[in-house]
Amino acid sequence: MAYNLLKGKKGLIFGALNEKSIAWKVAERAHEEGAEIVLSNTAVAMRMGSIDELAAKCNAIIIPADATSIPDLENLTDKTMEHFGGKFDFILHSIGMSPNVRKGRTYDDLDYDYLQKTLDISAISFHKIIQTCWKKDAITHGGSIVALSYIAAQRTLYGYNDMADAKALLESIARSFGYIYGRERGVRINTVSQSPTETTAGSGVMGFDALLDFSNRMSPIGNANADDCADFCITLFSDLTRKITMQNIYNDGGFSSMGMSNKAMAIYNRNLEECKDCN
Amino acid sequence: MAYNLLKGKKGLIFGALNEKSIAWKVAERAHEEGAEIVLSNTAVAMRMGSIDELAAKCNAIIIPADATSIPDLENLTDKTMEHFGGKFDFILHSIGMSPNVRKGRTYDDLDYDYLQKTLDISAISFHKIIQTCWKKDAITHGGSIVALSYIAAQRTLYGYNDMADAKALLESIARSFGYIYGRERGVRINTVSQSPTETTAGSGVMGFDALLDFSNRMSPIGNANADDCADFCITLFSDLTRKITMQNIYNDGGFSSMGMSNKAMAIYNRNLEECKDCN
Amino acid sequence: MAYNLLKGKKGLIFGALNEKSIAWKVAERAHEEGAEIVLSNTAVAMRMGSIDELAAKCNAIIIPADATSIPDLENLTDKTMEHFGGKFDFILHSIGMSPNVRKGRTYDDLDYDYLQKTLDISAISFHKIIQTCWKKDAITHGGSIVALSYIAAQRTLYGYNDMADAKALLESIARSFGYIYGRERGVRINTVSQSPTETTAGSGVMGFDALLDFSNRMSPIGNANADDCADFCITLFSDLTRKITMQNIYNDGGFSSMGMSNKAMAIYNRNLEECKDCN
Amino acid sequence: MAYNLLKGKKGLIFGALNEKSIAWKVAERAHEEGAEIVLSNTAVAMRMGSIDELAAKCNAIIIPADATSIPDLENLTDKTMEHFGGKFDFILHSIGMSPNVRKGRTYDDLDYDYLQKTLDISAISFHKIIQTCWKKDAITHGGSIVALSYIAAQRTLYGYNDMADAKALLESIARSFGYIYGRERGVRINTVSQSPTETTAGSGVMGFDALLDFSNRMSPIGNANADDCADFCITLFSDLTRKITMQNIYNDGGFSSMGMSNKAMAIYNRNLEECKDCN
Repeated sequence: MAYNLLKGKKGLIFGALNEKSIAWKVAERAHEEGAEIVLSNTAVAMRMGSIDELAAKCNAIIIPADATSIPDLENLTDKTMEHFGGKFDFILHSIGMSPNVRKGRTYDDLDYDYLQKTLDISAISFHKIIQTCWKKDAITHGGSIVALSYIAAQRTLYGYNDMADAKALLESIARSFGYIYGRERGVRINTVSQSPTETTAGSGVMGFDALLDFSNRMSPIGNANADDCADFCITLFSDLTRKITMQNIYNDGGFSSMGMSNKAMAIYNRNLEECKDCN
Repeated sequence: MAYNLLKGKKGLIFGALNEKSIAWKVAERAHEEGAEIVLSNTAVAMRMGSIDELAAKCNAIIIPADATSIPDLENLTDKTMEHFGGKFDFILHSIGMSPNVRKGRTYDDLDYDYLQKTLDISAISFHKIIQTCWKKDAITHGGSIVALSYIAAQRTLYGYNDMADAKALLESIARSFGYIYGRERGVRINTVSQSPTETTAGSGVMGFDALLDFSNRMSPIGNANADDCADFCITLFSDLTRKITMQNIYNDGGFSSMGMSNKAMAIYNRNLEECKDCN
Repeated sequence: MAYNLLKGKKGLIFGALNEKSIAWKVAERAHEEGAEIVLSNTAVAMRMGSIDELAAKCNAIIIPADATSIPDLENLTDKTMEHFGGKFDFILHSIGMSPNVRKGRTYDDLDYDYLQKTLDISAISFHKIIQTCWKKDAITHGGSIVALSYIAAQRTLYGYNDMADAKALLESIARSFGYIYGRERGVRINTVSQSPTETTAGSGVMGFDALLDFSNRMSPIGNANADDCADFCITLFSDLTRKITMQNIYNDGGFSSMGMSNKAMAIYNRNLEECKDCN
Repeated sequence: MAYNLLKGKKGLIFGALNEKSIAWKVAERAHEEGAEIVLSNTAVAMRMGSIDELAAKCNAIIIPADATSIPDLENLTDKTMEHFGGKFDFILHSIGMSPNVRKGRTYDDLDYDYLQKTLDISAISFHKIIQTCWKKDAITHGGSIVALSYIAAQRTLYGYNDMADAKALLESIARSFGYIYGRERGVRINTVSQSPTETTAGSGVMGFDALLDFSNRMSPIGNANADDCADFCITLFSDLTRKITMQNIYNDGGFSSMGMSNKAMAIYNRNLEECKDCN
């Protein structure tokens, strides 16, 4: 169902790879709600995924950019403004990757060049995007910038590795730049802390299926999926949330406010019976 | 501007006194967005305020109830369901009052009967409303319950007195019942932590004007007013936030994420030189 | 091992029932560290437990008091000051009880008279104790007041019922009064959020053993027990923490900062395969 | 006053520059409490400061190291173990520097090479130190690692710039590694979030004096100074806090739990009167 919530708005969406991507769903929903869209991703991701299909569906153009490269981002911002005929209204940052995770380097054996890349790709890219837009005054007053985060920024989850630190940094950047962009130009910056989601990126994390099940049984309303996330992002881009900024908001079925649920404990407890001597 | 976000939805709104009330604005916006509304307030508040005017505007009925009285709430729930012809979709709780504040009893000289009243009116009423609806199975699957809170639940503000404790209790009730209502019937329960707002209730707090100014200068986007709050509540009642539950979300222009702003510091710093010995 | 950390200090300890009680351990450790102690509990608890034995060990006197009764607390404070020959330095509040839990009333079927008692006994008693001491100026400058809390104040745990709300209220009272007592007389007020602990009170909670196991496997250093809690309380009463106030500090082996641990997941995951349809 | 709290313990302290440094005070207090100490700092800092004087006072040796260099840290760890004749018990990380702050690059005009340096020096160095010790199994079971942080990790303060993001990253590293080091070897890792402190590093921040005054008037017990911080660090290194890990604990006179104080408001309000038209 569509409400025209974003009628007349223009937005730039990073990170749509394939139809499982949260960014993909956000682009679709934003388009349904009346927004015009520009899509961006790296050249590699564009070859691996199917972003052309999305662009066709959303009547969007695609502008490739490496979000860690300032020249790329300058070019992207210029072209986006050119395409829209001026400033635009919202940005979605859905970018994250850890070479340490990919190469199987555990958190007690990090490669520091990889760590720098994790932070640069997954967190500092957010600052780079915002600063580039800020310098070019690319966002309208009342605009909205959103990045996707995860509760690992606050609580340690086995196997999430240095992505936890990247998410903590990402959320801090949202606050730090949110202060300046809000004060000077009324632009709000928030992060959405999403349930673990079955995307191509998410599935790479060790023990992902068990985590998904645990998370789902812990969450009173169950895990939020990519569609749920897209719906919520739409509200954050709309004019109905103009005073919400510098926040990290959990779209997670209640997981973040749970200590222990009945459903998760039922599984745990059953297994515990049979397992008195486990470590 | 309206989007039909609540088309076909039915809601019960507590706490509209006059046109300054947040609950008043929420009722107006919910009506604009296509919802049918039932209004409730105490008999005394109905005499003091102008709720009839609101009812006329929103094509709503009014059912008086003391939200601390179970029989009143049972009657209210029955009549509301009767009016709507079945279950309804959302509730707004905007109720708070402290006899200690009213009678000038400071926090180090609380009257404990008053404290009990503060908690009963401002927090436990929320549990009573929810439990009554729960027992009568009055809320639709996917429904949404919201209460208004304030950052005093987390941080002490001079003069806010025992209302701070009431808000902490209120937010805890949202989590505790949110777990059960979410798990069993997919109903979400959240609190909105709103900027200090110039309502009849808010203005009663000691030093309110200075607080409002400080809060406004600390908040990068400025204080959220009652209209801003209504806009945000609409999104929480809509189907776009179905996986958000047990959360306390700040609608406050960024205040909650600020330590010190340039604008507030400019005032603070102004005569600090001349004031070396001030306490 | 003892360090004379509390040499010359005098303290009042509420809630020692038997040798499993955290308050019991705190009294023992405070005595070892050189403090003089007054013990208090209700007349009923004194008959049920073995507090006389503790008093003998610690060279302490016992003054019975119902911590919800202002006259009792006034008498207690007077007698304590009389015993010590003046002001004293620290207080431990280790008091909690829920008639709803005891009578098996679940959170969606609370008895509101019971709820009021839960709050009065488990949270408001803390305000009453502090306000009584405040009015009689019973605490030395630089003194320290501590109450025991639990993470249920922030996150919902199946079965913890209205005690979660009581702990949220308790922690709010620590902040609210901590502001005043700190500002005016340099007294700090904090809460310690302790692991689930095998005390007579703790064991009453539904599914306690499984919770204890889960909590232990989630916590990198394992659950903190009553002795660990006593050790930490000693540091909070000492002069080494004079600037820490209005805080809730987790003494929980890291549980509060965990999202999912390897050890807990090993149990959880064990039979998940066979249990695809479990609720 | 000394208690022998660290009798028999051995520790490694980073970041003592001169007698204003928090690390300096921690070293002095640790020595007073019976610990043996190794001091480390960069070669440059050693020339600028007066660490030799501290070493003499504490009967400590100094081993220079750039905490961003793995070879330096490996050499430091080896030499420290050699000096102590085996494993040691605690580490203090008191290291922070932002080239962006130094060079006057504001947060909306960051140099990204500088940002990388800020993060490497102020946060990643903490991971490097821990990982080096972890690989060499240099810390005893029950050991304690502490880093100094600031509330800018949670709330934006005008002028604190990219150090805020560094502190957020630092606190995340404490949690992430705290999980592993706790689980495997019983070592706890925490951060102390300290009041703004008049050190050589602290004073470099823009508008520091006004911030210090505001912070002091907002904090019920006033700002914690370097001595207060040292006292608290001693408790975290001691055996009395063995179950506290992965926490960020505020040693700040209550600032973090304040929304607005009477004392700060008195200044603010006075100035506001004279300043009706200020922005």
